Amino acid sequence: MCARMLALMFELIHQSKKSMARVGRIHTPHGVIDTPGFVAVGTNGTLKALDNETVVQAGLQLMFCNTYHLMLQPGTEVVKQAGGLHKFIKRDKPIITDSGGFQVFSLAYGGVASELKSQGTKKTGGSVLKIDEEGVEFRSYRDGSKIKLTAETSVQAQKDLGADIIIPFDELPPYHIKKEALIESLERTHRWEKRSLDYHLKNPNNQAMYAVVHGGVDEELRRQSAKFADGLPFDGFAIGGSLGKTKDQLFEVLEYTTKHLDPSRPRHLLGIGDLYSIQESVKWGLDTFDSSYPTRSARHGVVLTSQGTVNFTLGKQKTNFNPIDPECSCHTCRNYTIAYLHHLFKAKEATVLTLASLHNLTRMVKVMADLRESILRDEI
Amino acid sequence: MCARMLALMFELIHQSKKSMARVGRIHTPHGVIDTPGFVAVGTNGTLKALDNETVVQAGLQLMFCNTYHLMLQPGTEVVKQAGGLHKFIKRDKPIITDSGGFQVFSLAYGGVASELKSQGTKKTGGSVLKIDEEGVEFRSYRDGSKIKLTAETSVQAQKDLGADIIIPFDELPPYHIKKEALIESLERTHRWEKRSLDYHLKNPNNQAMYAVVHGGVDEELRRQSAKFADGLPFDGFAIGGSLGKTKDQLFEVLEYTTKHLDPSRPRHLLGIGDLYSIQESVKWGLDTFDSSYPTRSARHGVVLTSQGTVNFTLGKQKTNFNPIDPECSCHTCRNYTIAYLHHLFKAKEATVLTLASLHNLTRMVKVMADLRESILRDEI
Repeated sequence: MCARMLALMFELIHQSKKSMARVGRIHTPHGVIDTPGFVAVGTNGTLKALDNETVVQAGLQLMFCNTYHLMLQPGTEVVKQAGGLHKFIKRDKPIITDSGGFQVFSLAYGGVASELKSQGTKKTGGSVLKIDEEGVEFRSYRDGSKIKLTAETSVQAQKDLGADIIIPFDELPPYHIKKEALIESLERTHRWEKRSLDYHLKNPNNQAMYAVVHGGVDEELRRQSAKFADGLPFDGFAIGGSLGKTKDQLFEVLEYTTKHLDPSRPRHLLGIGDLYSIQESVKWGLDTFDSSYPTRSARHGVVLTSQGTVNFTLGKQKTNFNPIDPECSCHTCRNYTIAYLHHLFKAKEATVLTLASLHNLTRMVKVMADLRESILRDEI
Repeated sequence: MCARMLALMFELIHQSKKSMARVGRIHTPHGVIDTPGFVAVGTNGTLKALDNETVVQAGLQLMFCNTYHLMLQPGTEVVKQAGGLHKFIKRDKPIITDSGGFQVFSLAYGGVASELKSQGTKKTGGSVLKIDEEGVEFRSYRDGSKIKLTAETSVQAQKDLGADIIIPFDELPPYHIKKEALIESLERTHRWEKRSLDYHLKNPNNQAMYAVVHGGVDEELRRQSAKFADGLPFDGFAIGGSLGKTKDQLFEVLEYTTKHLDPSRPRHLLGIGDLYSIQESVKWGLDTFDSSYPTRSARHGVVLTSQGTVNFTLGKQKTNFNPIDPECSCHTCRNYTIAYLHHLFKAKEATVLTLASLHNLTRMVKVMADLRESILRDEI
């Protein structure tokens, strides 16, 4: 277990007296992640419209890259040849990769998000060719080649990428699913996670592996999944699967899931990172949150401030010669006005995507720092 | 004439013994432009995919903005309300604006470039409503409003924008035009330029005005236009109009035009900035060159190096783990490899546009510095 100890260490700094919220530090081979912490999503090894140096300077300590996307482009062999993902993308701070399961099952079943938005419950299967106990076979949309994603190939791909934190292969069941099917899916996911962990531990490679806790919105299944994850030597936990239709459902899931998880290991919430969800989720002892929300909002002209969100694309912003947030110290707020961002957006200049994204990420870093302060003062 | 003296001063540092090439400094209210110098094109008040702070840091001393575009979006009244273009776009270095004539006549006749590429010799007139001695009336593609561009309204728009260097209103005749029509157009351009200068000199506003020298590829008309410009108190000259189909035609035009121009005033070459053209044009005493060539090339994956151009989108670059140019000191070359840029391009990540554009602009700054060195040594 020595390699695991080296790969990741969770240091608890303060446990709130008011809730399960806690302040900590995750130590990784590429440095520290202060928790609760926001995790930027850089699917293809970059955040949209930002370069990795800039992202580090903005204070983002952990970056989430997607194995599915990187397998297809540029291919894990290219990244391996470069000396791993950190070298390939020039990032010397921590990286987490997922298993590819989420994306490949979104191809098969349609994404949970689009399902919940009633954009169709099931897709035709897209380019997924076969799903069986071994794994999933699908066709690359890039070159038409067949790719088999299994517990072993997913973990091997993540070894080739070399992120600090990796995720076992799991099945993402549709939200609308009968209980028997959900149980079947959960059991298969647990078998795949165990295979992933076994494969990982043969060659830990200074990487840590977080279990994915599934079970949809079913309390008993969430309990089973949490117990399963808790009972194995995973370095941390990622809460995944269907997390409900509403925020209240999400918080319920977190409540009845987290109480079964070893508090000495870090907890990640997969794919959720809006401000309200984060502020509530930390109360259940969640430590890290990945989301493309701040960057996606920015690209649509919505920026986060200490006074709430501002839509700089609105007509009334045409002559707003103030910065987005006078209290913000980011490059964008130090240099540019809302009127200028409005103009760049209307003129369809890509520069605005960079400037707005940089601001929103800087804001997220500040929000998380403030949250940590509040927890340290037992206010949360 | 005191205001003109304040607005712009051309300091000759060295006149080559080998050609008309010279090294100088243009002093403006917003600082110095070393010449020969490359001028970045920031049509809408930004370079594509780069922010103005970054552009200044890359060493670009003069930026070219387009009055036509800024009139339509955000409108000169917004820029004026912001305190002028420098404040609106947050650039404290020199800016040059054009008259809008080029764009509005491109609407009427089709662009010279597309004409020479046989993409049709005449357009239907687009949204141009009327052309007469007073000026051009056209319809805004943004809000359908009628806009009248005349010598006076163009210069007033440029006063509202407040660039360091402005350009008189001119007519851009099509390349394929009979001599009589070209003469007529040239005479009208001269009348419009004189009206522009008169309007400008009533309120110089610490701005300098360059004449535009026209005459197509006709030696006699170029001589007439150069003499006209030379005889009026313009602060400098911009060589415009049709500059021929080939580079040789361009250099011929420069040869028989520049000899009639007062050498104590700076000379700008409008819209031409590829490396070969610049290297040859400096021999005719050209001082500044605006072009979107380096940024447009970058967006297509073509980068400039000391060893020539590199297309990083080619398959062979997939595993090229070297920087674009090991001798380059730009942010891109200091941090990222060609393989990573290749990957970002294939993954359609906007980040690559920023990184490649920044490199190409940095390269242009270096090329111009090297050119100045060569001229100082009388090698050019």
